Amino acid sequence: MRTQVGIVGGGPAGTLLSHLLHREGIDSVVLELRQRETVETTVRAGVLEHDTARLLESTGVGERMEREGAVHHGVELRFDGRGHRIDFSDLTGKSITVYGQQEVVKDLYRARDEAGSPPIFEAAATGFEGLETDRPKVRFRRGARFDPEAGEIRFADGSAEEEVECDFVVGADGFFGPSRQAIPGSVRKEYTRTYPFGWFGILVEGPPSTEELIYALSERGFALVSTRSPTVQRLYFQCDPDDSVENWPDGKIWAELAARLKSRDGSWKLEEGRIFQKGIVRMRSFVTEPMRYGNLFLAGDAAHIVPPTGAKGMNLAVADVRFLAKGLTQHYRDGSDGLLDRYSEVCLRRVWKASRFSWWMTSMLHAFPGEDEFQHRLQVAELDYVTSSRAASTSLAENYVGLPMDEM
Amino acid sequence: MRTQVGIVGGGPAGTLLSHLLHREGIDSVVLELRQRETVETTVRAGVLEHDTARLLESTGVGERMEREGAVHHGVELRFDGRGHRIDFSDLTGKSITVYGQQEVVKDLYRARDEAGSPPIFEAAATGFEGLETDRPKVRFRRGARFDPEAGEIRFADGSAEEEVECDFVVGADGFFGPSRQAIPGSVRKEYTRTYPFGWFGILVEGPPSTEELIYALSERGFALVSTRSPTVQRLYFQCDPDDSVENWPDGKIWAELAARLKSRDGSWKLEEGRIFQKGIVRMRSFVTEPMRYGNLFLAGDAAHIVPPTGAKGMNLAVADVRFLAKGLTQHYRDGSDGLLDRYSEVCLRRVWKASRFSWWMTSMLHAFPGEDEFQHRLQVAELDYVTSSRAASTSLAENYVGLPMDEM
Repeated sequence: MRTQVGIVGGGPAGTLLSHLLHREGIDSVVLELRQRETVETTVRAGVLEHDTARLLESTGVGERMEREGAVHHGVELRFDGRGHRIDFSDLTGKSITVYGQQEVVKDLYRARDEAGSPPIFEAAATGFEGLETDRPKVRFRRGARFDPEAGEIRFADGSAEEEVECDFVVGADGFFGPSRQAIPGSVRKEYTRTYPFGWFGILVEGPPSTEELIYALSERGFALVSTRSPTVQRLYFQCDPDDSVENWPDGKIWAELAARLKSRDGSWKLEEGRIFQKGIVRMRSFVTEPMRYGNLFLAGDAAHIVPPTGAKGMNLAVADVRFLAKGLTQHYRDGSDGLLDRYSEVCLRRVWKASRFSWWMTSMLHAFPGEDEFQHRLQVAELDYVTSSRAASTSLAENYVGLPMDEM
Repeated sequence: MRTQVGIVGGGPAGTLLSHLLHREGIDSVVLELRQRETVETTVRAGVLEHDTARLLESTGVGERMEREGAVHHGVELRFDGRGHRIDFSDLTGKSITVYGQQEVVKDLYRARDEAGSPPIFEAAATGFEGLETDRPKVRFRRGARFDPEAGEIRFADGSAEEEVECDFVVGADGFFGPSRQAIPGSVRKEYTRTYPFGWFGILVEGPPSTEELIYALSERGFALVSTRSPTVQRLYFQCDPDDSVENWPDGKIWAELAARLKSRDGSWKLEEGRIFQKGIVRMRSFVTEPMRYGNLFLAGDAAHIVPPTGAKGMNLAVADVRFLAKGLTQHYRDGSDGLLDRYSEVCLRRVWKASRFSWWMTSMLHAFPGEDEFQHRLQVAELDYVTSSRAASTSLAENYVGLPMDEM
């Protein structure tokens, strides 16, 4: 198989790139390990930065998002039992759009269908060749299925190795994908931070408790209230990363959430409902450098992970492929590699800023095991400062709605 | 001896309070342990926030400061070998004044001399009585001398205990003074953070290397370049708090400073000169709550210590006594204790914000022993963000020039 850009990974990064390249007349092939249905139905968070939403709109894949997504003009920070609104529109003139990541991907798949070139699903990349050359190859096998029990990929009978020969390979295959590993260890530098807590998340049937997101810090730790749809609430609270959902019957969950979210004047009430999903996610920061090796470009989670506190994950992926699409367009149109040569540097600068923001939000809003009381008071002082200074509120807001992509 | 306000401590906090009260017709007695000459000649740092300088001017003790102090409109942050200016005037419309703390105190002593009521020097507070009553007393002895070798106070022959009877006692006797200890442990809550590094400071004869302060982070740690006067430079670099000045011959100091401060393009040069003083200061954050107990009010270092990175120490003391003077004035003029009753709460809110700022500046600009590379990259990302975002620059600037006192 021959294409211009071989893309490993059909999540938001890989599929959006394929979509953006198609609009510029550039061919690509996307390999996605999972089944299409799995990707489309796995509920994922989705806070779209202002410019992420604009990009989807301006490239023809924002129609349903405009109809079904919820535009938020602020968030609430709650501490010491009081809520303080950060007004994004007032502070930055921008907003965010809450629209699940799986919905974004669904819309992109439809656009790729219409273009006659959807991702190849259940296709596992099995090897890379000639990444330093201008004819790199991705080997892959169809009929793949990840077996979570065994932790490995199994293949359907008769699945044979094929290859995509291309000009460029893009590794958009997430943190666990093989692309990053194709960069020799001697070249690759990885930075990791594991946070000493996880998020216990629940999905709840019932009317929303809040229109905008509420980020709360109490002495018992962090909690987050959000609304997935008019009939589904998404709630989180900080927990031991090694805890098990078995230890949390519904009553205990509601009591814990109520304790962390209670307002001093009793004016606010968390709406309870039927909990239909529970899960614990670990919190990690990860950055790999460089993001380019020869003609392999990493994008999205393959290159960087942020804790979910700042809602930056998918947006960073979008920023990567937006710049990459420009660089590839410049290459094919003008024969110039000016932008491609700056890809790693430009993206990493944004990645580190988003990593800082995510780390800062996480540090400000979580109780750290073993932290002293001085640390807790500093956190409260930080929240007090952030919510009482226009400059500091603006700083939070401009990161949340997304630092300007123009900087790139 | 009888007065209205008995003040323990004749540093900037105590003496400024005495001065402000005098202007409102309120009597006070100030007890200072040290000799006058010691206070007046011990060189201390002095970055006056905008409103601190305005307060000295508007109460008639700013004349020499206006003449001899250096007004700075910004500072430089230097990292990755590049300097970035934070322009206070542009961002906040305010400035800072560099004028040594000992000069501020000298001017205040002169004003107290003219009013016929200078502090009583070499007077050690030896006890407190009736702090919960409206006739509290401070016992003291004259002819005191602190013996640093023995770590205790000795008295001249014939020194007898005397007492100041007053309406209010103010403890402005610094971190090591006895006032704070007069608050029962059951009432008092203390928060402490010791930083795992110190500042190695030198005074240098010679022309300035910089007009404005330079705060630098390199992989070797923090360095600070400042100018004490047209002929004296004040330089600092982060060191092991247990290090000794004996380990640092002049050549080694200059090499270390050059390594930490070098600019990538080689355009900037540190001016060397004769080093005439070396010393190591430890870095600590400390807050005690509440700042009031009965009719005892703590002010300045007696209640809170910040690391010097944010240049907030003396300014917090000034904010404390400014509010306290208002409260005492309201008490004597209107018979209302409205402000005095809010003293602790109002001051602590500012104290915690300044503690947060000082901690943040310290964390961003120092290498922490044992820190991982992720942490160093976050620091650089934070500096990159702070120097590239107007909102974040403004946030730093508004703290540096001083959050509005009006908030109080």
